[in-house]
Amino acid sequence: MNLDAEYSKLTLDTKPKMALIVLDGLGDIATKEQQYMTPLEAARTPNLDALTKDSAQGRMIPVAPGITPGSGPGHLGLFGYDPIEFQVGRGVIETLGLGIELKSGDVAARANFCTINEKGLVTDRRAGRIPTEKCEELCKILASKIKKIGDTEVIIRPGKEHRFVVVFRGKGLEGPLTDSDPNREGLPIAVVKAQNAKSAKQKKAAKLVNDFYKLALPLLKGKQPANGFLMRGIAHQPAIPTFQERYKLRPVCLAVYPMYKGLAQLVGMVKIEGPQTIREQFERFLLEYEKYDFFFIHFKYTDKHGEDGNFDAKKKAIEEFDAALPILLGKKLDVIAITGDHSTPCKIKGHSWHPQPVLLHSPYSGSDKLQRFTETGANTGSLGIFEAKYLIRLMQANAKMFDKFGA
Amino acid sequence: MNLDAEYSKLTLDTKPKMALIVLDGLGDIATKEQQYMTPLEAARTPNLDALTKDSAQGRMIPVAPGITPGSGPGHLGLFGYDPIEFQVGRGVIETLGLGIELKSGDVAARANFCTINEKGLVTDRRAGRIPTEKCEELCKILASKIKKIGDTEVIIRPGKEHRFVVVFRGKGLEGPLTDSDPNREGLPIAVVKAQNAKSAKQKKAAKLVNDFYKLALPLLKGKQPANGFLMRGIAHQPAIPTFQERYKLRPVCLAVYPMYKGLAQLVGMVKIEGPQTIREQFERFLLEYEKYDFFFIHFKYTDKHGEDGNFDAKKKAIEEFDAALPILLGKKLDVIAITGDHSTPCKIKGHSWHPQPVLLHSPYSGSDKLQRFTETGANTGSLGIFEAKYLIRLMQANAKMFDKFGA
Repeated sequence: MNLDAEYSKLTLDTKPKMALIVLDGLGDIATKEQQYMTPLEAARTPNLDALTKDSAQGRMIPVAPGITPGSGPGHLGLFGYDPIEFQVGRGVIETLGLGIELKSGDVAARANFCTINEKGLVTDRRAGRIPTEKCEELCKILASKIKKIGDTEVIIRPGKEHRFVVVFRGKGLEGPLTDSDPNREGLPIAVVKAQNAKSAKQKKAAKLVNDFYKLALPLLKGKQPANGFLMRGIAHQPAIPTFQERYKLRPVCLAVYPMYKGLAQLVGMVKIEGPQTIREQFERFLLEYEKYDFFFIHFKYTDKHGEDGNFDAKKKAIEEFDAALPILLGKKLDVIAITGDHSTPCKIKGHSWHPQPVLLHSPYSGSDKLQRFTETGANTGSLGIFEAKYLIRLMQANAKMFDKFGA
Repeated sequence: MNLDAEYSKLTLDTKPKMALIVLDGLGDIATKEQQYMTPLEAARTPNLDALTKDSAQGRMIPVAPGITPGSGPGHLGLFGYDPIEFQVGRGVIETLGLGIELKSGDVAARANFCTINEKGLVTDRRAGRIPTEKCEELCKILASKIKKIGDTEVIIRPGKEHRFVVVFRGKGLEGPLTDSDPNREGLPIAVVKAQNAKSAKQKKAAKLVNDFYKLALPLLKGKQPANGFLMRGIAHQPAIPTFQERYKLRPVCLAVYPMYKGLAQLVGMVKIEGPQTIREQFERFLLEYEKYDFFFIHFKYTDKHGEDGNFDAKKKAIEEFDAALPILLGKKLDVIAITGDHSTPCKIKGHSWHPQPVLLHSPYSGSDKLQRFTETGANTGSLGIFEAKYLIRLMQANAKMFDKFGA
């Protein structure tokens, strides 16, 4: 049974206007330490409350019960792609986030400068977090000396601080490969290997990466503190059907952080540059309104403060979001979904497996008669607890994008 | 997509301490006859109530919607094995319950003495429920005369009353076979056949069982009332990955009844003998605490009284359990799950398909802000209604046993 094929057959090209608003890591847990309140429950959210009145609620399992997703699978799920079926390497995501368009067959690696001692052992996995300018300077040196290895083109681009990416563009290459990052200090840079020893393409790619090391390390010799580098998440861009093909939607991404722009681009979203705050993102939405059908708007700070275990800051981030929300509501959208890509409970200080709450608002969502949008309320909502990959199907349904199935 | 393989890849060997406490047949239904209260709702449970405050709740579908499980599939599901994928014959379960360790390739049958008349027709399928001593005596006769059939070893062991088991240990054998039990009186003992006519191993096993009859029936000739026997659930031990392999956990079983010990043993749990009451089981848990990671504790009486349709006794059994619970709480477990293997509603006087309530307690379970652990409360819990096979994955997540999925 191929459910996606059935959805496709039913899809009507109605050119709706929909927004998927992701408060990264929104979900949380009620604990004694915080008087059994979650940040979403503790926050003052008059605009969300007003929207709630005419909305449905539920909770979403990001990947599968008990599984804590990274940002990649978290967003792939929200975009309606099964995160287990569509696995994307970190190298690919980082590369896309830097605005580099990957071609079919490219192998991309997330890299960062590190410090190694005279014995070749890693003494600082982040090279003291060198400033971005220093990283740019070092990448320039590497890029000017290493343009090709055999027939394979090598593309090197700096990121923020000690981070950069390397793309290998050639024939017969494939990921995923093992990391060269030994994951802790005191060990040497690891030799990169094919994850599947039977794949000739992975083996060729692994040899290329190891050859790249032989050329690049001598160029960094004597530099301090960045005299080495580590590579992780070395993978190729998987074949992912685009949003346009899959949903008959023209999608656009309004995100601030490169990672989320990269993820959006991976599924064929147009990437908008410029906005730096949620207010600016919503204002830009007003300007772009006519040009697209589907707006993915990403708010980072709920996750950031959750990761820091800062309950008050997470609560305030939600309030900041709520205060900006009326800007978005200035345009009449057919469907609005507000959710997270996963939970980031303050107590856990990291991503978690707890289903994130979701609010779905449309003229046809119905009202769950809840006063507020909260985790506890969402438990009792009409959407139930469902896999995140179905959210976009529910949004499409609410936008009347599906024909009746059968007579 | 193999989800279990993904869970395995993510599993960290954190040596947590977890308890899965099964109140057999716990779930019930609220009916007018009982003033719309379930036994769990009617029971006085101060200790469960206190635990509830910092716990999540939900309900679990034991196998699939509408399916009423036997004890085998009910427990296999709780242990995280899809009960449709991993089907275990009753013969195998009974054999394990008698403490006989099965070897790969063994075919085991559940048997019981019966009465046949001079025409060979079954007149009493249970031979008047002969006393256990009589059964032991008859099994001794059979076992002393039939040790081997060809190359195949035959192991005969008495159970309670008219029940016994027969194990065929040889090469090239496989189940499942059809029953020899005609299922009603007035019919002859049925010839046993392969369930899959194309399986040479099943056919060989069927011939063995029929040959066994030819040797055994003459030995019972003239005995009254047990002059024949019936065989059911003739099957081999399926290949089930052990708890250790699958979850990186050292599991132990604290059960009183043989059936549940057998089920636990099937998935590689260590079987503890001795405790006869829930207090004794909890006290033994304290003694065994250091040696294991995962404690399966089985309480039978909720099911027993549900089967009898005795509401008050089921309620009292829950109260008895609740009174003993503080003994368990004397050790600081990382995760506690309290549930049933299925529902046994008093009104139905038998197992049912109704999802059983589950309570999950850990420092990271969050609070569902419920005052009590009940079927109705569990309907609104953050765990939702989910398949029982995922419970152990949620327990693992709560014990921080899973690495993050993807970047």
